[in-house]
Amino acid sequence: MELPVVKRVAIIGIGLIGSSLARAAREYGAAGSVALYDGSADVRARAREIGLGDVYDDVSDCVRDADIVILATPVGVMGALVQTFASAMKADAILTDVGSVKKAVVDAALESVPDHIHFIPGHPIAGTEKSGPDAGFASLFRDRWCILTPATELADDAGQAALKRLSDFWTVIGSQVQVMDVERHDRVLAITSHLPHLIAFNIVGTAHDLESVDQGDVIKFSAGGFRDFTRIAASDPIMWRDVFLNNKDAVLEMLGRFNEDLAALQRAIRWGEGEQLRSFFERTRGIRQSIIDAGQDTDADNFGRDTKK
Amino acid sequence: MELPVVKRVAIIGIGLIGSSLARAAREYGAAGSVALYDGSADVRARAREIGLGDVYDDVSDCVRDADIVILATPVGVMGALVQTFASAMKADAILTDVGSVKKAVVDAALESVPDHIHFIPGHPIAGTEKSGPDAGFASLFRDRWCILTPATELADDAGQAALKRLSDFWTVIGSQVQVMDVERHDRVLAITSHLPHLIAFNIVGTAHDLESVDQGDVIKFSAGGFRDFTRIAASDPIMWRDVFLNNKDAVLEMLGRFNEDLAALQRAIRWGEGEQLRSFFERTRGIRQSIIDAGQDTDADNFGRDTKK
Ligand SMILES: NC(=O)c1ccc[n+]([C@@H]2O[C@H](COP(=O)([O-])OP(=O)(O)OC[C@H]3O[C@@H](n4cnc5c(N)ncnc54)[C@H](OP(=O)(O)O)[C@@H]3O)[C@@H](O)[C@H]2O)c1
Ligand SMILES: NC(=O)c1ccc[n+]([C@@H]2O[C@H](COP(=O)([O-])OP(=O)(O)OC[C@H]3O[C@@H](n4cnc5c(N)ncnc54)[C@H](OP(=O)(O)O)[C@@H]3O)[C@@H](O)[C@H]2O)c1
Repeated sequence: MELPVVKRVAIIGIGLIGSSLARAAREYGAAGSVALYDGSADVRARAREIGLGDVYDDVSDCVRDADIVILATPVGVMGALVQTFASAMKADAILTDVGSVKKAVVDAALESVPDHIHFIPGHPIAGTEKSGPDAGFASLFRDRWCILTPATELADDAGQAALKRLSDFWTVIGSQVQVMDVERHDRVLAITSHLPHLIAFNIVGTAHDLESVDQGDVIKFSAGGFRDFTRIAASDPIMWRDVFLNNKDAVLEMLGRFNEDLAALQRAIRWGEGEQLRSFFERTRGIRQSIIDAGQDTDADNFGRDTKK
Repeated sequence: MELPVVKRVAIIGIGLIGSSLARAAREYGAAGSVALYDGSADVRARAREIGLGDVYDDVSDCVRDADIVILATPVGVMGALVQTFASAMKADAILTDVGSVKKAVVDAALESVPDHIHFIPGHPIAGTEKSGPDAGFASLFRDRWCILTPATELADDAGQAALKRLSDFWTVIGSQVQVMDVERHDRVLAITSHLPHLIAFNIVGTAHDLESVDQGDVIKFSAGGFRDFTRIAASDPIMWRDVFLNNKDAVLEMLGRFNEDLAALQRAIRWGEGEQLRSFFERTRGIRQSIIDAGQDTDADNFGRDTKK
């Protein structure tokens, strides 16, 4: 592949994902230059300070010369944001995003996207519990998947070439690309990401509110399992509010199934049905091994975070 | 503190915890020698092979000369096991355990414990998702808490000296000791360990059973959050069956609260109540920071497992 993949990429929203993309695009040579915009003046100032790219105070100026424009804000604002700059984008440029929900973003943005632009929504399955421009790093997307959900109109040659260009961009920064439709994306992510976050936020909230147990005890004895959930529950509240508001149907469906299964476990505990508990706990082990074999997690004890000193 | 703390420790059950104790007792000089017994002949053979200590084929022979006897089997068998060897223990020796549940163990074992023995139940808040004699390592208990739940009869001088001896043993292998009563232990652990495990087993089970989502997709896109839960859900099924059967009341109480809170979140999602979601997600962040400040977790992104390569 010839580098850089594109001359210039513009990134709107300079948080964890946006700043990681800016770093990765330059470090791995995916883009010749990086244009940046963020709604917050403080974030723009910080991005200038740490030299993430050419930072603009106006979003239309930011996107004007870009071959690829990547939205990296919370999903709730993406639709309105596209309206403000789409007409400033140059012909044959690609508009994409990194939002954790796809159907709602597509529906909100689609009517503002001019015909001369290729709209190819995306979602890198990579992240951390941190936020903001200082939290990002170039290798975030390495060995991770990036899902692209192109509209069917890409069926023409120019559309296919654009899809190839965007795939190359993600490949160069270390990801594997998978194309799928928006509905499938939203269903798969509801179980692999949105429901786990909801459950984690919830159990940390339950522990927080317990009057019958000392908060100090919850902190001290968190190594029994609870601490794993607090990492996920430390993720950005605005980002996650927007995810749940915008993937309501799939999340509620998965939550319904989760609740049914939990009711069955609750009943087995109440009635002392040991064999049912054991066989339930037995069959979940295979999934972890498959995830390790697929290179999506470490096999080190406790994720390697505190063992074998 | 003069080392070794005791001349000889006996450990019954040579799995993750038992084999870690054997390694730690020798490496840090907590015991002059280590006697070992396990119900499984294969495990005994393996313990001999890797040189964990003096391995016995008879449990009474194993405990005979020990100053401290530590039960490290699943909690469900502890009561019956104590009956088989308690009379072989020497006078003034300490009988303790590492079980994740305390009240049920105490109730099941107490009547078999002879008067000349100090019975001081315990629980190290340390572990991994692995099992068996090869999974253990000496530093497992370092910087972790160990809870001791002595019976009130320890109020005499000999009892207090025994408690001091057992505390010293745990301190030498790197733990901080906290004394509390059995009811408090079982309530605190229900929220910090038992409920998190139940939830993790459950969500992995829900994902496993989904016909509407490809299993391959669950594996590939697990880095969105799901993979964190699969680690905990890979823990030993027998151990966890016994925990839920033996801490039923506290687990069902915590589960009831968890379900109430989850119903409120579900309702907020259904009715699009963004502000309620955001404020709920906001208030859970402080707990993680406290856990990091207390040295009970790492602050590295994603537990440091795959970032900043
Ligand atoms: N975090 C993850 O693990 C992860 C993984 C995959 C995908 N995603 C997706 O990536 C996107 C960004 O997430 P993130 O974790 O990078 O969030 P983040 O660190 O909070 O960054 C978001 C940035 O967007 C800015 N912003 C908000 N509204 C804006 C607007 N109207 N115009 C311009 N900038 C605006 C924010 O500024 P303020 O600070 O002033 O609000 C902030 O600097 C989200 O859509 C999320 O769903 C996240
Ligand atoms: N894992 C953790 O994270 C953790 C943390 C703190 C406390 N604990 C507690 O520590 C204890 C042991 O857990 P673990 O993780 O070390 O489990 P493990 O790795 O499965 O080891 C348990 C060992 O006990 C043996 N055993 C079972 N029944 C026995 C009997 N009647 N007599 C003698 N040996 C017997 C087992 O042999 P077989 O293989 O033949 O069954 C196995 O070798 C449990 O009570 C658990 O609640 C665990």
